[in-house]
Amino acid sequence: MSKFFEIEKTSQSKARAGVLHTDHGDIQTPIFMPVGTVASVKTVHQRELKDDINAQIILGNTYHLMLRPGMDIMQQAGGLHKFMNWDRPILTDSGGYQVFSLSKSRKMTEEGVKFKSHIDGSYHFISPEKSMEIQRQIGADIFMAFDECTPYPCEYNQAKLSMELTHRWLKRCVDWTKENEELYGHKQRLFPIVQGSTYSDLRKISAEVISEAGAEGNAIGGLSVGEPEEEMYRITNEVTDILPKDKPRYLMGVGTPWNILESIGLGVDMMDCVMPTRNARNAMLFTWQGVINMKNEKWKNDFSALDEFGTSFVDRDYSKAYVRHLFVAKEYLAKQIASIHNLAFYLDLVKVAREHIVAGDFYEWKDSIIPQLKQRL
Amino acid sequence: MSKFFEIEKTSQSKARAGVLHTDHGDIQTPIFMPVGTVASVKTVHQRELKDDINAQIILGNTYHLMLRPGMDIMQQAGGLHKFMNWDRPILTDSGGYQVFSLSKSRKMTEEGVKFKSHIDGSYHFISPEKSMEIQRQIGADIFMAFDECTPYPCEYNQAKLSMELTHRWLKRCVDWTKENEELYGHKQRLFPIVQGSTYSDLRKISAEVISEAGAEGNAIGGLSVGEPEEEMYRITNEVTDILPKDKPRYLMGVGTPWNILESIGLGVDMMDCVMPTRNARNAMLFTWQGVINMKNEKWKNDFSALDEFGTSFVDRDYSKAYVRHLFVAKEYLAKQIASIHNLAFYLDLVKVAREHIVAGDFYEWKDSIIPQLKQRL
Ligand SMILES: [Zn+2]
Ligand SMILES: [Zn+2]
Repeated sequence: MSKFFEIEKTSQSKARAGVLHTDHGDIQTPIFMPVGTVASVKTVHQRELKDDINAQIILGNTYHLMLRPGMDIMQQAGGLHKFMNWDRPILTDSGGYQVFSLSKSRKMTEEGVKFKSHIDGSYHFISPEKSMEIQRQIGADIFMAFDECTPYPCEYNQAKLSMELTHRWLKRCVDWTKENEELYGHKQRLFPIVQGSTYSDLRKISAEVISEAGAEGNAIGGLSVGEPEEEMYRITNEVTDILPKDKPRYLMGVGTPWNILESIGLGVDMMDCVMPTRNARNAMLFTWQGVINMKNEKWKNDFSALDEFGTSFVDRDYSKAYVRHLFVAKEYLAKQIASIHNLAFYLDLVKVAREHIVAGDFYEWKDSIIPQLKQRL
Repeated sequence: MSKFFEIEKTSQSKARAGVLHTDHGDIQTPIFMPVGTVASVKTVHQRELKDDINAQIILGNTYHLMLRPGMDIMQQAGGLHKFMNWDRPILTDSGGYQVFSLSKSRKMTEEGVKFKSHIDGSYHFISPEKSMEIQRQIGADIFMAFDECTPYPCEYNQAKLSMELTHRWLKRCVDWTKENEELYGHKQRLFPIVQGSTYSDLRKISAEVISEAGAEGNAIGGLSVGEPEEEMYRITNEVTDILPKDKPRYLMGVGTPWNILESIGLGVDMMDCVMPTRNARNAMLFTWQGVINMKNEKWKNDFSALDEFGTSFVDRDYSKAYVRHLFVAKEYLAKQIASIHNLAFYLDLVKVAREHIVAGDFYEWKDSIIPQLKQRL
């Protein structure tokens, strides 16, 4: 068997093209991972994810899945792959981020977090051990350490205390994982998370602690939470300088198409974001030519293909005028078309980025394409 | 070239199997027609309608399409087939039914109806001639005469006056259609509509007037508007006794799976209804075994296929437990899955009905299957 992560090509700087080997198949990196919050990538059928979007791995959310459908049903189903009929790799977050952002009432201690469900107000408890247990029950190929994600801005001292807690929690995650077996016969790999807000010295400490954990992959959390883009790039760059070169690096919650390319340029291998699907539902389309607001009057009698450079069937089957009409008339199909388009575009974006890394001209290409990606059409 | 309607097999009673030849392809009758109100069958992609649901013809709504996207855009697009990328047959209603049911403010005269849009309150006018003009601009293969559809219950005198108005309007529809050419190079056929509420003598008069119009197909309107099922069957039977045997008969707005089979038994060839899609969005599934409420607790850990006798990919790809979870979590995909399932079931239902007509055992089969279709699972 091969190693988990193989680097196929390293560019003149930090960007690299690789392959992740999982028991549910290979993933070409750099990769973008569509978010399937509650066991569904919103508005998209699983066969569309595979055949039209070419998603190689998707994300599930521990917080949402523990509340609905709950771990009872999840285990009876034999894990998330079987429950949702998705046989390619899955990554789950730890639940930490959503406990802090969605639950309105929560009490945090060293032990863990007691919180009130945003759905029915029922009380739940999550801790490093509990998060590990749930992620075992979900059965993701890659699962995340339970961390505290600081908001932006965050006082230095709070950021430091939070980071230290995240480090102590990591040890408990690692210990629990060593002592407890996988449930469904396929390998699950734990990724720890670098925190430290926008403080370089904290990020350096955290990146070193996380590196020393010796995990098979590492994540960068606490970014893309409202800080300026330049801050995000600066911290990402500092952290990827420290994280082991031979392990995949996952930048959590990023981002726009240009964020994706800049992050790849800084040595990031994996990314996820709700942006392509959430913005799609609000009529915003990302394309190689720039950003489109599909509700705009200007498309009302533009009968050209939705996206002549798009890779999915929606780009050929439907015209701009038709999709604009569907958005104006508030038809469900509008959201479905836009979601497939955006996800297919994101997957095409990282595929083409990878080709340029392999060809050796990634940075020139990136700098030339980004102004175009940012254009408002 | 063949005739528009060819009867392939007549059963021992009124049910018959036929073929409708249109410039957008053949339609095997009896047929169910999914409703695509605003140029979209809600939650369903056009390629799913073709490949997974096997829809042979769909419906468009004149009232909705005249408001959005409007006839300016419709004509620029080259008609509804091109606008929505659907190259199989389309039937449009006349707008009459929706003007009376959706617009809260309207003024009717002999000339036509002035009404206020339910969307933005703007004023519009529709008349027999206007309805014909719009349906030419939409470019449906089959289009409907502009009629007044009486509510249920309806006073005898009101029903009589309304029916007579519908007959006068029919003459104007026929005249306009003779004087004005088709716009997109394919043939459009006008179907007149029998009215007369639940009064046998009025229905007899109306069926005779409509038959004498010599149209290539005829419709039965004003049913499935709240009257008891037995009334609907009685009137349908009386009307199909009079309508020409060699012309297709379209029963508008019907209905449940058992309504569909009973109507076929009474000599109906075409039906449409929002029920399979509307009920799908409310978690009601129709199957060969009976009716399912997908939100029911009993499905929460039933990991069997959504419908083992279903014909579409959703029936195999997803489990009952998964689809129930999606409904409980209010995920868009729930409505998409259920809509595809129900429409595929309706199309399978009429396909199997046709096979039994051809085989000569339709009535025995219908009577044996209906109690099963009605079961609550
Ligand atoms: Zn290998
Ligand atoms: Zn023929």
